[in-house]
Amino acid sequence: MGGDNLREEIDGEDMLKGEEAFKKTKVLPWTKQITVRSVVTSFALSIVFNFIVCKLNLTTGVIPSLNVAAGLLGFAVLKSYTAVLKRFGFLHLPFTRQENTVIQTCVVASSGIAFSSGTASYILGMSPYIAAQGGGGGDTPINTKTLNLKWMFGFLFAVSFVGLFSIVPLRKMMILKYKLTYPSGTATAHLINSFHTPKGAKLAKKQVSLLFKSFCGSFLFALFQWFFAAADECGFSSFPTFGLQAFKKKFYFDFSSTYVGVGMICPYIINVSLLIGAIISWGGLWPWIAKKKGIWYSADLKDSSLHGLQGYKVFIAIAMILGDGVYHCVYMLTKTGLSLVEQYSQKKATLSVTCEDDDPQSDEYDEKIRTEYFLKDQIPMWVACSGYVVLAIVSIIAVSHIFHQLKWYHILVAYLIAPVLAFCNSYGCGLTDWSLASNYGKIAILIFSGWVGVDHGGVIAGLASCGVMMSIVSTASDLMQDFKTGYLTLASPRSMFFSQVLGTAMGCVITPLVFWFFYKAYSIGDPDGSYPAPFGLVYRGISLLGVEGFSSLPKNCLKLAIIFFFLAILINIIHDLLRHYETKYRIHRFVPNAMCLAIPFYLGGYFAIDMCIGSLILYVWERRNKQKAKDFCPALASGLICGESLWGIPAAILALAGLKAPICMKFLSAPVNDRVQAFLDAGHQ
Amino acid sequence: MGGDNLREEIDGEDMLKGEEAFKKTKVLPWTKQITVRSVVTSFALSIVFNFIVCKLNLTTGVIPSLNVAAGLLGFAVLKSYTAVLKRFGFLHLPFTRQENTVIQTCVVASSGIAFSSGTASYILGMSPYIAAQGGGGGDTPINTKTLNLKWMFGFLFAVSFVGLFSIVPLRKMMILKYKLTYPSGTATAHLINSFHTPKGAKLAKKQVSLLFKSFCGSFLFALFQWFFAAADECGFSSFPTFGLQAFKKKFYFDFSSTYVGVGMICPYIINVSLLIGAIISWGGLWPWIAKKKGIWYSADLKDSSLHGLQGYKVFIAIAMILGDGVYHCVYMLTKTGLSLVEQYSQKKATLSVTCEDDDPQSDEYDEKIRTEYFLKDQIPMWVACSGYVVLAIVSIIAVSHIFHQLKWYHILVAYLIAPVLAFCNSYGCGLTDWSLASNYGKIAILIFSGWVGVDHGGVIAGLASCGVMMSIVSTASDLMQDFKTGYLTLASPRSMFFSQVLGTAMGCVITPLVFWFFYKAYSIGDPDGSYPAPFGLVYRGISLLGVEGFSSLPKNCLKLAIIFFFLAILINIIHDLLRHYETKYRIHRFVPNAMCLAIPFYLGGYFAIDMCIGSLILYVWERRNKQKAKDFCPALASGLICGESLWGIPAAILALAGLKAPICMKFLSAPVNDRVQAFLDAGHQ
Repeated sequence: MGGDNLREEIDGEDMLKGEEAFKKTKVLPWTKQITVRSVVTSFALSIVFNFIVCKLNLTTGVIPSLNVAAGLLGFAVLKSYTAVLKRFGFLHLPFTRQENTVIQTCVVASSGIAFSSGTASYILGMSPYIAAQGGGGGDTPINTKTLNLKWMFGFLFAVSFVGLFSIVPLRKMMILKYKLTYPSGTATAHLINSFHTPKGAKLAKKQVSLLFKSFCGSFLFALFQWFFAAADECGFSSFPTFGLQAFKKKFYFDFSSTYVGVGMICPYIINVSLLIGAIISWGGLWPWIAKKKGIWYSADLKDSSLHGLQGYKVFIAIAMILGDGVYHCVYMLTKTGLSLVEQYSQKKATLSVTCEDDDPQSDEYDEKIRTEYFLKDQIPMWVACSGYVVLAIVSIIAVSHIFHQLKWYHILVAYLIAPVLAFCNSYGCGLTDWSLASNYGKIAILIFSGWVGVDHGGVIAGLASCGVMMSIVSTASDLMQDFKTGYLTLASPRSMFFSQVLGTAMGCVITPLVFWFFYKAYSIGDPDGSYPAPFGLVYRGISLLGVEGFSSLPKNCLKLAIIFFFLAILINIIHDLLRHYETKYRIHRFVPNAMCLAIPFYLGGYFAIDMCIGSLILYVWERRNKQKAKDFCPALASGLICGESLWGIPAAILALAGLKAPICMKFLSAPVNDRVQAFLDAGHQ
Repeated sequence: MGGDNLREEIDGEDMLKGEEAFKKTKVLPWTKQITVRSVVTSFALSIVFNFIVCKLNLTTGVIPSLNVAAGLLGFAVLKSYTAVLKRFGFLHLPFTRQENTVIQTCVVASSGIAFSSGTASYILGMSPYIAAQGGGGGDTPINTKTLNLKWMFGFLFAVSFVGLFSIVPLRKMMILKYKLTYPSGTATAHLINSFHTPKGAKLAKKQVSLLFKSFCGSFLFALFQWFFAAADECGFSSFPTFGLQAFKKKFYFDFSSTYVGVGMICPYIINVSLLIGAIISWGGLWPWIAKKKGIWYSADLKDSSLHGLQGYKVFIAIAMILGDGVYHCVYMLTKTGLSLVEQYSQKKATLSVTCEDDDPQSDEYDEKIRTEYFLKDQIPMWVACSGYVVLAIVSIIAVSHIFHQLKWYHILVAYLIAPVLAFCNSYGCGLTDWSLASNYGKIAILIFSGWVGVDHGGVIAGLASCGVMMSIVSTASDLMQDFKTGYLTLASPRSMFFSQVLGTAMGCVITPLVFWFFYKAYSIGDPDGSYPAPFGLVYRGISLLGVEGFSSLPKNCLKLAIIFFFLAILINIIHDLLRHYETKYRIHRFVPNAMCLAIPFYLGGYFAIDMCIGSLILYVWERRNKQKAKDFCPALASGLICGESLWGIPAAILALAGLKAPICMKFLSAPVNDRVQAFLDAGHQ
């Protein structure tokens, strides 16, 4: 409420635009941009964000962009720290926006590892537990690998750093020459810049205060919920909000403030797509297929068998995800190619037409000073190239040692293709903000698992090669986002690079530990548990397809999968055609996202409902006060996400210690309740 | 949120004060103040408010002042009606503030009957079900009376109208000569006046809009809750918010938006007193007495027996309530006496010193015009006196016919004392806004039950005489409040009187019907049910004390009761001494209210927690924006109260139709849940 006045002040005054506002602020050399306090802060926040990402990974696999949250929290921590020091007169070094950028970069890098390390996708897919669910010819010792911390550390260190070097030489081309947008990086840079102008700091303070409040609220609500969840099927997460029938079809609101927050950050169409996907699959398709039980598939199968209904769920989802991925890869490669051709034929600068959200405030002065700082600290070409070669060799030796199913030449091939894909991904991401790392990873699975074959451990080989590929491709696009942020905040490319290296190192240490923590505390990958980790089975399913072909699928599953594969491509084509040729009503905004349609196929609609509630809150807020919603919604959402996710730590500790909640909030149908009541009454007498 | 701007506008402009604003508005003759549309609206709202009061009566017996809600809703209904007519050009008669006052008066009169009719106190106390709980010598046929609609109608019509005539002759003295404040009446008048000025109508529109929203929210939430309450001990109303141990001691938040709303209307100290009372009794006293089981009282008794722990609860609560009542009666009689003596010795006008909240805006012009209209339509003295005599005779015949335990001379005595007490109560209410009707009623129980004796049905006689007394005393103070409202809104005393008569008649018809509706749908008076109706047993307990003396009490109960009786008096003395002699810090504001301390002795703390949450909301709101909280809190609270209470109608219909909710939200301790789960799993196989 108090935000009203502040905002008016800001709007009322004519703010100094762009770099004008910072004319009097000195930019420190890059060695002073990476400070001890920023590294410590980064480390602490990395742990927090690793928990958040890990939890999101293990529940639904839907992960929103956490850049804004990282920027806000980094600012909040260091600002309070320096404010305290200043009060006691100990402050030598003021808190600069470059330092803020360093923290943000480091945190994003380390939490990027939490995603690209695949602890909830390809690595989890190797585990015997998921293998048993997948079944078929893949459930053999050579096609499974028991998870343990040792090889996970080794693998991550071996593959995660290569990507950093793969793209460094191209940064000048991407940022200065092509002037790619990198929407997330640009948004973060604007946020950081605004924090460090006097007026912006006031707004930032309000945002931080709201973030803190919603953080506490979300944490306490999660704590409160814990007390009522003495067992599975107890507590708020099993609340049949829309009745028991809807609950059985996984339509309910599970009181997860995390996903409400995620919904507030994600665009409306994403959340609506998820809901539509849930309605199509759990509302129509699965009940229809379930009627064919005994006809299409054996009625004796366990619920979790991939040869039964579960198989339809997984493979139809895979088909849609693959269809979407294939379309995007082809589209991006074509676009990149065309764009490059155009670049070289017309020389420079027409590209910005395709950039949807170029920085309107940049004028010549801004550009001059930004370019100056961007070029000041160089990273020599030979360092980048030799770095890539050396690390690739180390990685080939290490990975082939860890996964004997994967021979050295397989990995070498991967490292030869990778830079091209890394370039494409980084370029595409600059245009659309959409990283396709996981799609390239999935294609790698299909290629390498088929190449190695089931008898030689093709499933594991495919999954491991996915890791090699994803790490490079994803790191490359993340790094380029950060270079863009650094460019706009005058942070040195060198400090960006080193903070990426640091962040990656932190990620390689923290990610497996955090994952292990959850892995030991809960039964990860159980479709009906709290942590279904859907992508474990999906990735393994792709690998099984690669080695076994389609023979293992239940009846008609292939037909349906093909239909949905092309449906995904069709949806994308319709979307893009509308986007280009129907600019009046912009109907393309209402075309659902194919990837998002597919996710609830496996999981059901509960998290889509959470996210739609987040959308609803945002919508109402925007209707009431658009500017305020824009200013404060990300802070509120970040608080909601962080609070509940952080409760995950004490909750997991309690679970590890074997302490159960004291109360079970149970939902029984009226007749069952009568029986239970009679049973309890009998017990009392 | 949108309210901000409006309020500033209002504060910014200098509003015309008092009657100046209405200079151009014609006041219609009294016969046109009571219109068909106002009667119809009153009738509809009477039903709504009867449901609300009845529900509050049957759950805890705590009833906030609903005048503001009645004023708001009356305005909302008629304003929308006239707005629609105006749009279509059908409007002959504009909506005046006098008409608004008529509606308000009528609704308050009829919902006053819902309280003074004692359906949840003295009448319920006659029923065999409560008699069985009370036990002792009172559980004989002559000391019980089966409830039925016929005699309830008769009784109410016989006793409710007498009060109207008892006090009419004194209105000029109370309003014009003594200038008594009547805080509720004055507040309502200001509200109605403000609605009918152009600026006020804008604010009223915002308030009505908020009321409507909170009404819908509260109604829908109650509907949602219903689905999860398939049986007793199911649903939100049994939510062990603070754990199962606290739940057993009745400390939990029961998600009742009604009581959250009530808490927002009641002063902080009332809510805190209730909470303190709950902590003292259920947190300390009862567990301590429970340890004496088998020593102080037999261990074989049923939980509900008045000879066991329940007896301590009821009689200690009665002792405190009586102590408080005795203190107030004595205080008020003394004060009235002194004040009258002062009046007659000093002649006029010094009394206003004792009035805490006299209208500061009234100037000579206002007073002149108000007095003019107040004196315009007279109600002759002889009409009032002969009306009282005739109705008293009718009433004596009717009541002695209905309750053969009560002889004609008993009732005659009651009607001889009543006008004096009615005058005292009306006078005291004018000073403090506190009607002591129920206290006079309790004293009547003690007197008449003792007089008649247990063998001749003294219990019933006492309860019936309570009804006779309470009706007169309560109606008299209500009517005088309305005269004050009418005085300030220029409504004619005659239209006030007739709308009171109409309202009373409506109340006499509606109240028993609404009560009957609940009585048939639920088990009213069950201490562990949804409708414990605590005052049923309390009133019967007082009557038992009257006929049996203290012999029937369990061991040490009398000692404790005496301690608490004097404690209540002591608290009141401390409060009043501090109020008079310690004006610097005004510590008296922090002295709890003895009556409120006693209510949770029987009921437990759950509704006190609801109400404290209401207080908390109000407190936070006031901290953020005091003016907005003041403007909108009553509207929000009224919406919360009305919404959930109104769901009571469909809920009761569903209960009558035997339709049960589909789901039971059950709360089990972890070990019990394990047993239940095992039982359910076994059932499935």
